[in-house]
Amino acid sequence: MADRRLKLCGWGFEGDGLSADEETALLQRLSERFNVAEVERLVAPAAEDAALPKPKLSIPAALSDFSSDGAYDRAVHTYGKSFPDYAYIYDDVFTNAPDFVAYPRTEAEVEAVLDWATGARVAVIPFGGGTSVVGGVEPMVGDGFAGAISLDLTRLDQVLEIDRSSRAARIQGGIRVPDMEAVLKREGLTMRHFPQSLEMATLGGMIATRSGGHFATLYTHIDDFVESVRMIAPQGVMESRRLPGSGAGPSPDRFMIGSEGSMGIITEAWMRLQDRPTFRASSAILFDDFYKAAEAVRAVSQSGIFPSNLRLLDAGEAYNNGFGDGQQSVLILAFESADHPVEAWMARGTEICRDHGGIFEDEAGNDPEAHRSGKAGAWRTAFIRMPHYREVLMSVGVIGDTFETSITWDRFREFHDEVKAATQSAIEEATGQPGTVTCRFTHVYPDGPAPYFTFQGQGRPGAMIEQWRHIKEKASEALIVQGGTITHHHAVGRDHMPWYTQQRPETFGSVLDAAKRQLDPAGILNPGVIVP
Amino acid sequence: MADRRLKLCGWGFEGDGLSADEETALLQRLSERFNVAEVERLVAPAAEDAALPKPKLSIPAALSDFSSDGAYDRAVHTYGKSFPDYAYIYDDVFTNAPDFVAYPRTEAEVEAVLDWATGARVAVIPFGGGTSVVGGVEPMVGDGFAGAISLDLTRLDQVLEIDRSSRAARIQGGIRVPDMEAVLKREGLTMRHFPQSLEMATLGGMIATRSGGHFATLYTHIDDFVESVRMIAPQGVMESRRLPGSGAGPSPDRFMIGSEGSMGIITEAWMRLQDRPTFRASSAILFDDFYKAAEAVRAVSQSGIFPSNLRLLDAGEAYNNGFGDGQQSVLILAFESADHPVEAWMARGTEICRDHGGIFEDEAGNDPEAHRSGKAGAWRTAFIRMPHYREVLMSVGVIGDTFETSITWDRFREFHDEVKAATQSAIEEATGQPGTVTCRFTHVYPDGPAPYFTFQGQGRPGAMIEQWRHIKEKASEALIVQGGTITHHHAVGRDHMPWYTQQRPETFGSVLDAAKRQLDPAGILNPGVIVP
Repeated sequence: MADRRLKLCGWGFEGDGLSADEETALLQRLSERFNVAEVERLVAPAAEDAALPKPKLSIPAALSDFSSDGAYDRAVHTYGKSFPDYAYIYDDVFTNAPDFVAYPRTEAEVEAVLDWATGARVAVIPFGGGTSVVGGVEPMVGDGFAGAISLDLTRLDQVLEIDRSSRAARIQGGIRVPDMEAVLKREGLTMRHFPQSLEMATLGGMIATRSGGHFATLYTHIDDFVESVRMIAPQGVMESRRLPGSGAGPSPDRFMIGSEGSMGIITEAWMRLQDRPTFRASSAILFDDFYKAAEAVRAVSQSGIFPSNLRLLDAGEAYNNGFGDGQQSVLILAFESADHPVEAWMARGTEICRDHGGIFEDEAGNDPEAHRSGKAGAWRTAFIRMPHYREVLMSVGVIGDTFETSITWDRFREFHDEVKAATQSAIEEATGQPGTVTCRFTHVYPDGPAPYFTFQGQGRPGAMIEQWRHIKEKASEALIVQGGTITHHHAVGRDHMPWYTQQRPETFGSVLDAAKRQLDPAGILNPGVIVP
Repeated sequence: MADRRLKLCGWGFEGDGLSADEETALLQRLSERFNVAEVERLVAPAAEDAALPKPKLSIPAALSDFSSDGAYDRAVHTYGKSFPDYAYIYDDVFTNAPDFVAYPRTEAEVEAVLDWATGARVAVIPFGGGTSVVGGVEPMVGDGFAGAISLDLTRLDQVLEIDRSSRAARIQGGIRVPDMEAVLKREGLTMRHFPQSLEMATLGGMIATRSGGHFATLYTHIDDFVESVRMIAPQGVMESRRLPGSGAGPSPDRFMIGSEGSMGIITEAWMRLQDRPTFRASSAILFDDFYKAAEAVRAVSQSGIFPSNLRLLDAGEAYNNGFGDGQQSVLILAFESADHPVEAWMARGTEICRDHGGIFEDEAGNDPEAHRSGKAGAWRTAFIRMPHYREVLMSVGVIGDTFETSITWDRFREFHDEVKAATQSAIEEATGQPGTVTCRFTHVYPDGPAPYFTFQGQGRPGAMIEQWRHIKEKASEALIVQGGTITHHHAVGRDHMPWYTQQRPETFGSVLDAAKRQLDPAGILNPGVIVP
């Protein structure tokens, strides 16, 4: 029911994927460590041929104008983009497929879905970009429901109003980032919140999951760009007032932000925007020692110069992304502004990095295209292409996944070492041989970094989900035991619930539970997510 | 029960107040417009002689070690620092005095109070600095309770732990800002969150009320400095995890921040700190036109240079604070840093202001003491002394109060004019003659300013509370009708509840109501505040 059809197994739309050259380079790199050549490559079923269960529900008349129970629609709404999601697709397992998919075009149609589902006790799974890597969009709802449907919000895709003076816009929740940016660009504006999922991600999905954008400091989460939110719950609309700032009670926005579809459907938001940057400076800085590099990052993060990029890649992470020699850590330092040249900012950032032993290998300076060239440019390209790699990795029998967190600086070194060691041990336990665990910082705060771990291990066809689950559980346990968060920006979903419930105060859990009973008394909204 | 005793009628501790010179200058300025010379000056009763009602409760044995029902303790915990608070004190009205005051020294004693009060159905009013200007600490709880006590938290006054590397500290909720800063200073650290109430304000009170600090941009509310919070509710402890950033569900911190004592008692928080600034630049810039000045402020706020000060005073506001000629608006522009010289930042800020017609009268430049000299210095002094003026104003029959809000830039001009006109009309209706209404910006965001209004009118002794109430109601109504917030940083308290309940989404009100039933089932905590 869309012009560009979602891809079933893999990232993006049908036809998207790695180029032949990218795939060759990837397989070459993997073969240094894993037996990718010996594996019979997995092939995913076509969406139309997926082994779907018979629907438990038929589409009611009130929703028939904008709903479909076609095989394609049900299949592509069964999973997100996580490792186990892909594994189940390759295995042709669609046990939890939605009974049908609703594609509302108006808020009235959203309300019609919620009304019907509340009465019929049908679980409703909100679906935006469908990019969840944490089991956020899977209709796995248990036996307490008459059925489960997917609520695809991508037809609510308009920029409704632009306030140039306040640099803000009222935007529907189902719009994808590139479509939104295209409209804003006509006014010289941009939200400049670019998560790695940016090709597919929708505004409402990003707000519901507290997404992390490409700004490494200051405006890290989408939270700060939200001026007001409009959310439809079964018991009514929750719409906050458009305000630059307020001190009137606990923030209603911060209650809706991060609710992951468990409290209501985000149909609209007023978002804070920016002018399009015209001044840029970018450098790649090499460090012999990861922890010394982290100290440089700490100093920059506490200096008040707020670089747009401050991403530190450990030696293995840099190498795996196609640059660096595998021996040195690489720090990408960049500034951007729509208002003023950034020399003074870059000069101070450079000075701090040099003081901490950083070596400026190449570019530096104020080349406005620097962010597209050199190591910074190589990183930018790798970052955007990264989501396309997973389907190939898995098809050749490599278990590969990422997890991310945050921790205060005082704990960082021990935390990093403990989490990395726990993950390495778990890979060996699960696969019988060593794997790789690398780390980068995606976002940095004055009081600590947000480390992002990538691991790979040799999979055994037929057992890869169990192997993955062992590693995931051990890594998640380490994050929580060592004092981190179970997620800095990937969200909670179903996969992180066991650790989320340990992390958040139990009393706050009881508050969320009470809130859900109030807003969604039948408990139909994304059951099992946020509220156990 | 404290070394320095709180003042009953007026700001600060006993002995504090305006100097003779300050009072003479104030009366001189007031006499230009009001008949202050003809009024018989009001005199407040001594705390020990206040007309207190007989207590309805006696102190239970479990709390007797740290509680007092002495006249002084009850009298100074009857009111905050609002206009009607002072008016009632001058009138010797103490109808709502607490039955006794508890001064817990430990969390266990806080829990003992809540346990006893829940069982005895006694209202508990948290009291930190006691600086509320919105009826936040008054034990006015209606007939549904066996009595009401004040819970004075100022004995929980320790900095418990400092993490230099992350620049954070674990601090008890009852510590006052100057005492906290004195401890942090020894480590070269500072929170640098200085509301106008800084002499008296406590950390827990500032978190509970979402206070606004002296930073005019970026880190405006205390919200951003909170790394984690520990709150004791009747149903248990809510303690969030120490994290630099997280995307795990709705923020528990943002639920506790702004709860104004209605959900629990904030006993501790990990706070984000800063290094002490050593680089400073500060200028005062004159504008012939307030709206042109506002445009300059908008441009600076959207430039990404984040000045520490960006306070715009309209002509009347500047004049009333002892500088400016009453014809020109004054903008204070300042930068500060502990890390780097701020010339580049100041240069760009200066350029923007000049482009918008601003005239740099004096200082400018990088004098590290500039924030203490010239107009910027005069403003700094006036700002800190301001809370001492109210008791004198009222004593000579002048109604004087302030209210504050925020609004997006697209609405600012009309909003300002409508709110000002409504307040001016209300003053005339209430007093029979014109008063003054002036405006300044206390905080500024890329999407809008936080305007702060000050009004004065001729009071009629014996009727000043009713006169004030008429003006307050009309002004508050204008704020809400015109799209603003009922408070940007003064909090909700009892005074703002009628407009707060219009402002916040009704569905969010039902969530807060459900949360309170969960955490405080007997409804003893600060009844009537946040949850109606």
